[in-house]
Amino acid sequence: MSGNSFGKIFTLTTFGESHGAAIGGVIDGVPANFQLDLDKIQLELDRRKPGQSNIVTQRKESDTVQFLSGIFEGKTTGSPIGFIIPNENQHSKDYEHLKEAYRPSHADFTYQQKFGHRDYRGGGRSSARETACRVVAGAIAKQFLHSLNIRFSTYVDQVGAVRFECDKFYELNQIEANSVRCPDSKINSEMEELILATRKKGDTIGGAIRCVIEGVPAGLGEPVFDKLHAELGKAMLSINAVKGFEIGSGFDSISMFGSEHNDPFETDGSTKTNHSGGIQGGISNGMPISFRVAFKPVATLMQDQTSIDQNGNEIELQGKGRHDACVVPRAVPIVESMAAMVILDFYLRNKSVHL
Amino acid sequence: MSGNSFGKIFTLTTFGESHGAAIGGVIDGVPANFQLDLDKIQLELDRRKPGQSNIVTQRKESDTVQFLSGIFEGKTTGSPIGFIIPNENQHSKDYEHLKEAYRPSHADFTYQQKFGHRDYRGGGRSSARETACRVVAGAIAKQFLHSLNIRFSTYVDQVGAVRFECDKFYELNQIEANSVRCPDSKINSEMEELILATRKKGDTIGGAIRCVIEGVPAGLGEPVFDKLHAELGKAMLSINAVKGFEIGSGFDSISMFGSEHNDPFETDGSTKTNHSGGIQGGISNGMPISFRVAFKPVATLMQDQTSIDQNGNEIELQGKGRHDACVVPRAVPIVESMAAMVILDFYLRNKSVHL
Amino acid sequence: MSGNSFGKIFTLTTFGESHGAAIGGVIDGVPANFQLDLDKIQLELDRRKPGQSNIVTQRKESDTVQFLSGIFEGKTTGSPIGFIIPNENQHSKDYEHLKEAYRPSHADFTYQQKFGHRDYRGGGRSSARETACRVVAGAIAKQFLHSLNIRFSTYVDQVGAVRFECDKFYELNQIEANSVRCPDSKINSEMEELILATRKKGDTIGGAIRCVIEGVPAGLGEPVFDKLHAELGKAMLSINAVKGFEIGSGFDSISMFGSEHNDPFETDGSTKTNHSGGIQGGISNGMPISFRVAFKPVATLMQDQTSIDQNGNEIELQGKGRHDACVVPRAVPIVESMAAMVILDFYLRNKSVHL
Amino acid sequence: MSGNSFGKIFTLTTFGESHGAAIGGVIDGVPANFQLDLDKIQLELDRRKPGQSNIVTQRKESDTVQFLSGIFEGKTTGSPIGFIIPNENQHSKDYEHLKEAYRPSHADFTYQQKFGHRDYRGGGRSSARETACRVVAGAIAKQFLHSLNIRFSTYVDQVGAVRFECDKFYELNQIEANSVRCPDSKINSEMEELILATRKKGDTIGGAIRCVIEGVPAGLGEPVFDKLHAELGKAMLSINAVKGFEIGSGFDSISMFGSEHNDPFETDGSTKTNHSGGIQGGISNGMPISFRVAFKPVATLMQDQTSIDQNGNEIELQGKGRHDACVVPRAVPIVESMAAMVILDFYLRNKSVHL
Repeated sequence: MSGNSFGKIFTLTTFGESHGAAIGGVIDGVPANFQLDLDKIQLELDRRKPGQSNIVTQRKESDTVQFLSGIFEGKTTGSPIGFIIPNENQHSKDYEHLKEAYRPSHADFTYQQKFGHRDYRGGGRSSARETACRVVAGAIAKQFLHSLNIRFSTYVDQVGAVRFECDKFYELNQIEANSVRCPDSKINSEMEELILATRKKGDTIGGAIRCVIEGVPAGLGEPVFDKLHAELGKAMLSINAVKGFEIGSGFDSISMFGSEHNDPFETDGSTKTNHSGGIQGGISNGMPISFRVAFKPVATLMQDQTSIDQNGNEIELQGKGRHDACVVPRAVPIVESMAAMVILDFYLRNKSVHL
Repeated sequence: MSGNSFGKIFTLTTFGESHGAAIGGVIDGVPANFQLDLDKIQLELDRRKPGQSNIVTQRKESDTVQFLSGIFEGKTTGSPIGFIIPNENQHSKDYEHLKEAYRPSHADFTYQQKFGHRDYRGGGRSSARETACRVVAGAIAKQFLHSLNIRFSTYVDQVGAVRFECDKFYELNQIEANSVRCPDSKINSEMEELILATRKKGDTIGGAIRCVIEGVPAGLGEPVFDKLHAELGKAMLSINAVKGFEIGSGFDSISMFGSEHNDPFETDGSTKTNHSGGIQGGISNGMPISFRVAFKPVATLMQDQTSIDQNGNEIELQGKGRHDACVVPRAVPIVESMAAMVILDFYLRNKSVHL
Repeated sequence: MSGNSFGKIFTLTTFGESHGAAIGGVIDGVPANFQLDLDKIQLELDRRKPGQSNIVTQRKESDTVQFLSGIFEGKTTGSPIGFIIPNENQHSKDYEHLKEAYRPSHADFTYQQKFGHRDYRGGGRSSARETACRVVAGAIAKQFLHSLNIRFSTYVDQVGAVRFECDKFYELNQIEANSVRCPDSKINSEMEELILATRKKGDTIGGAIRCVIEGVPAGLGEPVFDKLHAELGKAMLSINAVKGFEIGSGFDSISMFGSEHNDPFETDGSTKTNHSGGIQGGISNGMPISFRVAFKPVATLMQDQTSIDQNGNEIELQGKGRHDACVVPRAVPIVESMAAMVILDFYLRNKSVHL
Repeated sequence: MSGNSFGKIFTLTTFGESHGAAIGGVIDGVPANFQLDLDKIQLELDRRKPGQSNIVTQRKESDTVQFLSGIFEGKTTGSPIGFIIPNENQHSKDYEHLKEAYRPSHADFTYQQKFGHRDYRGGGRSSARETACRVVAGAIAKQFLHSLNIRFSTYVDQVGAVRFECDKFYELNQIEANSVRCPDSKINSEMEELILATRKKGDTIGGAIRCVIEGVPAGLGEPVFDKLHAELGKAMLSINAVKGFEIGSGFDSISMFGSEHNDPFETDGSTKTNHSGGIQGGISNGMPISFRVAFKPVATLMQDQTSIDQNGNEIELQGKGRHDACVVPRAVPIVESMAAMVILDFYLRNKSVHL
């Protein structure tokens, strides 16, 4: 009910604020007797963490996950996997000046209205640090899915007005080779330039991420409210700073005719085009699933801004701290993790369709 | 688990295929002791039904809802409201030729893959007729919300390339005055023209719907996975033919800078701009909630199409039947209904935030 | 949240009051492509309905179920099964005198306190008539389970002080042969006599039902909160008039020593004794599941009683109407139905334990 | 779905095995802005822990809870409370001999059947150590309920054949004054004697716990499947070693007549008797809630037992380790904790009954 859990069978419940002792979570519904590679999970976390390159925040967070349960002799037991990621390198004092401030387009005001009490340090529960827990669960989900030959390709599609505009499947090394995680090195350079120029101004810029999933068998997703793309959409829109989601032809489909949009069948059941984005009637059809996620420019600027405090007084916010000028490069593993959780959950849900 | 229920406190569970005895549903979690206007519910259903004007399908469906429980002496009892909408005017024979056919970009193929058995008549469970049940529940939700001064304005924003591009609040009579449900009569005419021309070719065209909600108090929505816009997004993406969802600045935010995107506060806590679309950190901030939904062109064409049957044989599909050339005019009450259910559900969820 | 739904994968949502147009429900999560015998479902309903023999109420209710969806060409489609049971033979006037009355040990007072508005006719939502919907869903669940060789034996174990005290598996015909549904005809006679004598006095008497389930494979149930017997217990305690539940050795285990209570293993993994009642650590072990359910004497007496009305005035209630002197004979199919729903639900839940 | 979560609004999700790094949990749906007394929570944990007196196991476990989130400046923030209880004093080697053994009436066999892989050390996930997490959540729930004047009295009602047979409300100090937690010191002595004699023989003995709750307002609980006593029953039956549950008159009601069982009203709406146990039609009526829980003798004996291993070979189990001869004294805070969680959850659920 409080929305700190995600999924129906394979579920993640997260807890933690950016400046408490630790963040963490519980992953439940984990299929039993499966060999996990714990190092790979840490590697995914490392992809999300700050300080990886010159275009992301230089804040140092080690983000080391500690598993507390549910794994025995390297294999899942079917019991819940509890884990924590200790908080380190906290500069709680950095936030003392924000105690009563409402920063524009942050969650300060709405948290205060809703709860009447909030941990203002580092954004508290609204900090994007919470997404590290999603990456842990997503990394586990991906190991299960890889064993089923379901594979993900997630990359930066757009930064500001610089767009890649492509929905092919790229291998991880092609994506990781480039600083912004756009698989095209030329466009990546343009994106990088734009991010650096934006940072220089103390400003931030929006972006978009594409995710392509191959190997999803036909039949995943439910016909009515829990359509596969509806759940993917919710998953993406639950990530901080996301403002939009589209599947397959997405918003472009608005100005298309049915005669050009319909995906004609090949005789083997595959389709010649894939405007559907791999999902028809809410259910996967075996074609690659392809969707795109829009991220707004992050609200924390390195410029001064006028705002108000809890008492309605005007205040001047100084731009300081250690923040990203563009969130999408670090959001790539988060998008992929949420997608992996959704696909695994529907895979498990689908097991009870027949007796 | 099978995804035929929606909501956490105020919930709708639907059942029914387009060619069975009836479709229907159960609305649970209805606040008790509230006077309902049953005629208003039927009026909303009438807005969705076929045959209202020259631009929608002339199929006749009376869509009369019968309430079976949960209402006594005109007031809700707090018990579940069960209801049915009998199916009438069925031309099941019309579908005999589709028994083994897989229509392009329909759910025929995916249902067969998932369930191994399907009611092929009129789309069965995948028929948009199921959305009539959503309109019943949404109409009830709106009566509760109106008593709280929460009001909806939902209208057609785009048909094909003809776009209204506006996110103001229009009154219902302004919207209903125009055939396509676009509040601007001039643009409505262009849209109507495009729809009629498209129908003449036996083709279909996509569109978009804008929904603006006023009066939502600050504090609705949950911080992490169940962000208010994440649930709105899921609700919209669960509607047949929807391919995209954006909140506030949406996809336009990608190419914006934080310094222009941030919504500066007035001293009363409202904001000077509303790029956030009324939601910050997943929680309503008291500003109008504004989102946009993209619909693909419907897959059923009045043109002949080549396709395959269950056995992988090529077949020729003839374009016949009674269908809409553009779905958005009739989808307006569906979008509004889903939005109303989401808002009421979060309103009720919010009641337990404090002891 | 309002508790009108039961189950996690195979779910039943019910609606309806005893004096509205109909009661009914939606069964969701039904495995697809399974041939159902609809006549068998009606037969189960007939076992529950009034007027079957001289010891149950002579109220006439035809209790005919109408299926509205989810079944096509005799087979389940995987879509939800909606159904209604029209209310007939209603004597709503019979209840006019109860409009403001609080009957002792009924739900009148608590419903009024909770909801502030109630349908007082025939108990409204608190009427045991609601359980007919459970029998429909249970009858369907049993058809799935029978195909897996999981079988139920449910019978009356006690009426007042007359106890059968046995936990063997009896066939349906042995149970149905006797008026009280106690498989031992001699004890059945004693029970019948007690019920008739009680009715003569205008009084009611309590009873108990035993349920034995054979063929449940080892592995059903979840380790912690959703132990198999915990869910069975909840299912039984949700039936009107139930005051207690015990599994295996139950309350007798209190005064036993571990050395006598432990069930020693045979080398094939079965156990020599079955004090566990077929469940260890919350999970079925392959032995027969055996539990017992205590029913209080029904609260509606054919004697006059002193009570109060909504305004706190003392009133005299007259004993009239058409009611059972002992509820357990008719409750047998209800207990069995709830048990079947629980077992099928856990069977389906168990499918995702391994990838 | 995997049953490691409990509750609908106020929820507890637990994780952890007895011999991993830590057990722990996440408490979600915690009302915001409430001052918590963390010391009181630790005190409740201390009541459950081993080594408190001469009649419980002398195993030393410090059971110190560490809160990681959701509390800021001593007050709840409305965000989830994550916590861990590190495992200490583990003698994992003690369990090496049990690696392949199936102990009688333990969960070894059923876990192996279900999961195919298990942490055999100290019972793994089936260890009663998991209940420490329930005590943490229950202690928090009680602080909320105390502020509403809802109070609990939970005590030992029976050990073996020695029964207290009373359902009055006793204060905590009256209960804690006696070693077995039976408020009557004379009967407590008899119980203690029986436990000591049983231990001497290396055997174990069953018991029962009574819980009385005062101050619950009328209106908590839901009419159909989620009756208040159904959820209490499930909560109790989910505790290790519980075999039975009864509310109010319970199993005694079987042999009562309606004319003696019905609870006549006083003019203020209270009742002269309380056979209902404070719940009518599934909803609290404002009278004390009273229920009783049956515990079997624990399965771990200090005697040798014959059993089998995973390969079906007969083995001899030696009675060794550090275990309780009777579980009920230490189970008192667990019963109370589960009851508190249920009551608080229904209290919060009840907030959305009216708009």
